[in-house]
Amino acid sequence: MPLLRKPYLIFLGEVTLKSDAKTGFGLRDWCPDDVIGQWALPAGTVSLDLPVLSPADAAARGAGSLLIGVAAVGGTLPERWIPTLVQALDAGLDIVSGLHTRLEQHPALAAAAARTGARLINVRHSDRSFPTGTGLRRGGQRVLTVGTDCALGKKYTALALTRALRARGVKASFRATGQTGIMIAGEGVAIDAVVADFIAGAAETLSPANEPDHWDVIEGQGALFHPAFAGVTLGLLHGSQPDAIVLCHDPSRTTIEDYPHIPLPTLHEAIRRYVEAARLTNPAVRCVGVAINSSTLGDAAWAAYREQVIADLGLPVCDPLRGGVDAIAQTLLA
Amino acid sequence: MPLLRKPYLIFLGEVTLKSDAKTGFGLRDWCPDDVIGQWALPAGTVSLDLPVLSPADAAARGAGSLLIGVAAVGGTLPERWIPTLVQALDAGLDIVSGLHTRLEQHPALAAAAARTGARLINVRHSDRSFPTGTGLRRGGQRVLTVGTDCALGKKYTALALTRALRARGVKASFRATGQTGIMIAGEGVAIDAVVADFIAGAAETLSPANEPDHWDVIEGQGALFHPAFAGVTLGLLHGSQPDAIVLCHDPSRTTIEDYPHIPLPTLHEAIRRYVEAARLTNPAVRCVGVAINSSTLGDAAWAAYREQVIADLGLPVCDPLRGGVDAIAQTLLA
Repeated sequence: MPLLRKPYLIFLGEVTLKSDAKTGFGLRDWCPDDVIGQWALPAGTVSLDLPVLSPADAAARGAGSLLIGVAAVGGTLPERWIPTLVQALDAGLDIVSGLHTRLEQHPALAAAAARTGARLINVRHSDRSFPTGTGLRRGGQRVLTVGTDCALGKKYTALALTRALRARGVKASFRATGQTGIMIAGEGVAIDAVVADFIAGAAETLSPANEPDHWDVIEGQGALFHPAFAGVTLGLLHGSQPDAIVLCHDPSRTTIEDYPHIPLPTLHEAIRRYVEAARLTNPAVRCVGVAINSSTLGDAAWAAYREQVIADLGLPVCDPLRGGVDAIAQTLLA
Repeated sequence: MPLLRKPYLIFLGEVTLKSDAKTGFGLRDWCPDDVIGQWALPAGTVSLDLPVLSPADAAARGAGSLLIGVAAVGGTLPERWIPTLVQALDAGLDIVSGLHTRLEQHPALAAAAARTGARLINVRHSDRSFPTGTGLRRGGQRVLTVGTDCALGKKYTALALTRALRARGVKASFRATGQTGIMIAGEGVAIDAVVADFIAGAAETLSPANEPDHWDVIEGQGALFHPAFAGVTLGLLHGSQPDAIVLCHDPSRTTIEDYPHIPLPTLHEAIRRYVEAARLTNPAVRCVGVAINSSTLGDAAWAAYREQVIADLGLPVCDPLRGGVDAIAQTLLA
């Protein structure tokens, strides 16, 4: 993954549902200074409330890349997007994509990139090769977000914790392991796209040696309790060698999403299993808090649930969207 | 991985140490009916005591492939091998290689394969795409060999257990996950070469639904306690959904091989951790025995060690090379 060229012009295609522009909203919310404008096809109705700029105008104002901020049906590249993407390449912008289809597989894009020297970057793929993991400790401190399941706030929690640490004057870097995270950070490793033998080695590379008082806040992936993706989770855990973990959970789930035959662990069991596994490469690892995606709970239910989990676990319990994660940052630094 | 074309002509390059021809010896020992002869360059001194056949002679006698049965320094293809490999392709033999370097990267081999229609097969690489894991149970029964470390007998134990089951009249298939295993079986999945997101899915594919009384004996990889490869091990464990596991161990090791800073777990702890992890996709999993690589122990020491482990764990303890694994097969079927 080369370093991405910011700032971005966010391309919204022709989506009409906000949920299809999740990537675009994530970028706007988490790196507003890196987002210079938005551009859509005439049929598109979703807006990020950013300045509307054509690729040429965005380039003239200093944009580095056109970033595809929407999901495409089936992950493939709609033919109707091609003229806009070619215009962007002709204006000197790189194209940054999280689609399954590689951009260079479209002849018109490959030709335009060759002509202009602009880059086609597929953040979902990993074209880099990595060493195997060493298990050797390295300088600096690390915290990894882990989960009872996929897609319940590990990226969001890591971003919020990075902000909370910086607000306390602590040196902290967000380390991205998934495509939206990589777009936000401008760099990272799509850890689930790495060849299996090199998961831990890629995680070691992602979070290199650093100053003793510097924290890497690493975006977790998958879950140890996920029947398809636990291998990714374990390799990332071992390679990250976290000094601390934050457990992320959504109390509305009782089974793994899309796997109704696989029950979720209890929070206590999840913490025990993550800490047990993480001790292999960092015997001093500890859990410093629980981040809850409480979007399905009303205020009273959330307050009651939170008090109960605090009492059960003796750890700070936060929802990044409801009061932030400073209590977790405080425990991390204690 | 396409089905490999047997029988094989084993190519021994110009090695002078038996240990560099480990693959060749493994093939001769585990699938003698599939090995038609051997061929080496003039400087080679290692022999498998098979008929010496040129590629053309082997093809005339029905060979399907020339199989590279030796390791090459650095995993790359020595230039001096090329004329022999081209002769084999010209004789209509496929070339089967476990080297890191892909055969088709050598222009002379790529040209000869294109000219003759013979295939260049790199068993170390995975060019197939797999679905993500489902975690859904499927018909048939499965036993997986697992280990306290890498390279201590998981393949050997799985092969021996397959033989022991067949000797008892049980339907059993060896399922290969590493390169030598794949060469022996003629098919399989190089599980450590799969993209991380698809490890469990590849393992599900490797061991498909079968008759209720059929056993798949699956070759394990890595170890849950290995700082580089545990992700591969966990994904293979989840996708295999084993009804039973056999723990493999080498009592001469106290730390992970090449990782002197990472201690091995006790046998008891290793079994506990494997069973705990395997329960995610098969709650009925049980450990049915321990396979010991006792090559560093004299007869008296081995007998004493074995008695002690039996007493500690209450499980059959075997060395496949010292008396076989029938006691484990018996417990498996009990």
